[in-house]
Amino acid sequence: MTNLALIEELKTLVDAGKVLTDADSLDAYGKDWTKHFAPAPLAIVFPKSPEQVQAIVRWANQHKVALVPSGGRTGLSAGAVAANGEVVVSFDNMNQILAFNEMDRTVVCQPGVATQQLQEFAQDKGLYYPVDFASAGSSQIGGNIGTNAGGIKVIRYGMTRNWVAGMKVVTGKGDVLELNKDLIKNATGYDLRQLFIGAEGTLGFVVEATMRLDRAPKNLTALVLGAPDFDSIMPVLHAFQNSLDLTAFEFFSDKALAKVLARGDVPAPFETDCPFYALIEFEAVNDEVAEQALNTFEHCVEQGWVLDGVMSQSEQQLENLWKLREYISETIAHWTPYKNDISVTVGQVPAFLRDIDEIVAKNYPDFEVVWFGHIGDGNLHLNILKPDNLSKDEFFAQCATVNQWVFETVQQYNGSISAEHGVGMTKRDYLHYSRSAEEVAYMQAIKAVFDPNGIMNPGKIFPV
Amino acid sequence: MTNLALIEELKTLVDAGKVLTDADSLDAYGKDWTKHFAPAPLAIVFPKSPEQVQAIVRWANQHKVALVPSGGRTGLSAGAVAANGEVVVSFDNMNQILAFNEMDRTVVCQPGVATQQLQEFAQDKGLYYPVDFASAGSSQIGGNIGTNAGGIKVIRYGMTRNWVAGMKVVTGKGDVLELNKDLIKNATGYDLRQLFIGAEGTLGFVVEATMRLDRAPKNLTALVLGAPDFDSIMPVLHAFQNSLDLTAFEFFSDKALAKVLARGDVPAPFETDCPFYALIEFEAVNDEVAEQALNTFEHCVEQGWVLDGVMSQSEQQLENLWKLREYISETIAHWTPYKNDISVTVGQVPAFLRDIDEIVAKNYPDFEVVWFGHIGDGNLHLNILKPDNLSKDEFFAQCATVNQWVFETVQQYNGSISAEHGVGMTKRDYLHYSRSAEEVAYMQAIKAVFDPNGIMNPGKIFPV
Repeated sequence: MTNLALIEELKTLVDAGKVLTDADSLDAYGKDWTKHFAPAPLAIVFPKSPEQVQAIVRWANQHKVALVPSGGRTGLSAGAVAANGEVVVSFDNMNQILAFNEMDRTVVCQPGVATQQLQEFAQDKGLYYPVDFASAGSSQIGGNIGTNAGGIKVIRYGMTRNWVAGMKVVTGKGDVLELNKDLIKNATGYDLRQLFIGAEGTLGFVVEATMRLDRAPKNLTALVLGAPDFDSIMPVLHAFQNSLDLTAFEFFSDKALAKVLARGDVPAPFETDCPFYALIEFEAVNDEVAEQALNTFEHCVEQGWVLDGVMSQSEQQLENLWKLREYISETIAHWTPYKNDISVTVGQVPAFLRDIDEIVAKNYPDFEVVWFGHIGDGNLHLNILKPDNLSKDEFFAQCATVNQWVFETVQQYNGSISAEHGVGMTKRDYLHYSRSAEEVAYMQAIKAVFDPNGIMNPGKIFPV
Repeated sequence: MTNLALIEELKTLVDAGKVLTDADSLDAYGKDWTKHFAPAPLAIVFPKSPEQVQAIVRWANQHKVALVPSGGRTGLSAGAVAANGEVVVSFDNMNQILAFNEMDRTVVCQPGVATQQLQEFAQDKGLYYPVDFASAGSSQIGGNIGTNAGGIKVIRYGMTRNWVAGMKVVTGKGDVLELNKDLIKNATGYDLRQLFIGAEGTLGFVVEATMRLDRAPKNLTALVLGAPDFDSIMPVLHAFQNSLDLTAFEFFSDKALAKVLARGDVPAPFETDCPFYALIEFEAVNDEVAEQALNTFEHCVEQGWVLDGVMSQSEQQLENLWKLREYISETIAHWTPYKNDISVTVGQVPAFLRDIDEIVAKNYPDFEVVWFGHIGDGNLHLNILKPDNLSKDEFFAQCATVNQWVFETVQQYNGSISAEHGVGMTKRDYLHYSRSAEEVAYMQAIKAVFDPNGIMNPGKIFPV
């Protein structure tokens, strides 16, 4: 069948006008935030129901057409990029919240519901959807599930996995499965829901998800503390974790802070210059808890782990302190950073960070390294900024060498080469640094069970 | 190969004296708490290391010998019963805690570590292992993982799944996999760890597990409240969940309470007789929180949802209130109860309970029904007591009929036929009430990936 005939047949499966093939659409829907790969999809299709998705998957099996699921396209590992003539299945037209269950605190979402849309819906109900990250405005629930999205509140609330009560999926074979049916307790064999979470659309597509909500946090309060060296950050984490229930423990380096302050729209937290900073958030449910936070702060100062610090006294101050951390990624984008999203167990973070710093300093003394991340869960974002005198191509070529050393170090520490961004295409060739050959073989055998024709997001996680 | 020759060869794989074939051992290690099936294993083997387990699995593949994993044998679904000439692999000799990581709050356990052993280890470190249930003294971590054990603190802490940071498993093919390596964030493809949790040993055996600990709870305080009818329990749950972070929300009926009080060793909570009772637990971290609990209690009384109540003022009182709930199962054992462990979403509990009550009352007016369970997570334990005038066989025959009606009702409500006890052999013929034919087919295909020879706990979850 010719491509043209394929597209004509595809059009019969969805509503009128819901297959696009114009150049702008192919370009826009064929890529995510990575921009390493040139988008080249065959067409973009916009189903409006699980039935239409099922029809598309069955059609794709019949004609061996590769499908790429597409949400908010904010991914950072090219998991939703269509660079090889695939049909992109966009969930933009399945973006409704279908039901709310107050007693269970659950929300039934179509996969195209934006993260922020769910957050705001929860807020309207006096509740809270706790998975949060920079791209919440445009990322979609289906994509969050596909990558098991994490973000800035994982230390308290865990990843997206924790908030999926149930899912309806269309498997690669075209079966519709209702997984877990929103139950809290269900010990009836393998929890297939867990398998689809983080599978990046390679086993099937999420066509409906029931998400759990939590009670709204009370009087969130942040401290920003400056430390004399990175090693001091860990006892600070330990001290605060022992005295308070933290909702976040983030860190960033002086270089990251300097870039954000240079914007001119965020006030400095305090005068003292420090090489490393921690942002700690907790619920100051009453004065006693706030006092406990201040006592722990003082204890950390006495121990020499903290040089200076500040605690938010209003919602405005809370927001300003968070901007110091949240603006980093956007701000350093200007320097075309080479980014890596890696993790180790929390206790190993200082030694690991030191090793990576040494590798970069020794081999690339001219490269500026900006560290930040979710230290409370061992997740570091390593950013190497492009020196002005290097071309982009030359810089990325050199970074490819760095990559290997970074991942070898990750492997030595039993860490993860992708903490929260997924594998997609950017990490697939490095998967063996985090997963054994046997594990990868089992994963591929599982994929074959759900997607025997290999049509579901091929080339993601595993090489084609 | 004769059975005798098989046993001789098996002996060469483990230490001297670590294969037992005497009648007492075969009987003791061949069964769990269900006692519906006559134990008939070929032998019991006690490996002491992952390598020995691997050798046993490889040997079993070579000779097509079925293996049954054996932990504390406290299961309630015959998941660890060996009734068909299997070799039982007992983890009794792999019961050491291998390491503690303070910064990560993790404990590396061999699979034979008892739940209570881990709880006490955590306590010694000033921390907390929150999965707790009646059989904590003898149940083992490996078995907890195999069944994704729940218990009385799920509303706050979730199931065992939430506390497994990483696992070493021997698959049915004899491969050793290290799953997740204790990371909090790890987005590198399918999370195979999740697949093994709750798989009841049908995919492979857990040979090491890293378990997470939590901070110790502060000043746990319980309320026992009496309600005029079951429907009033739900707004009480709702009111308390909106005002406090609950660690437990249990319920029991007047019939359950009467049986426990008749023992004579537990004081009544208060004078007023009520048809249903709720046990609510929370951390009274300060006076303000305790006051909030009392205010909510008063609000519930004003609304007519609660007739009477009491709040613990000491650890002794807390323990006594918990005994009202925890002694039920042991106490009613005297009446040879027909037990079912079922769940629905929380909001559906009242209607579901009413439907089941009607079925039993209509068809078996002489049967006494004792309800209790973890209402905060939709998990009900239905217990039908044997009338004195019925023989055990006659009673169980009649209950088999009840079973079908109960499970049909569960299916209507999209519930689970096994909330937390697993499928094992007792529920395998009813699996279709909770999982579709397609789902079961996918599960069996996954089993074939990890256990192509079908030697890992055959006949559990799925029929042989």
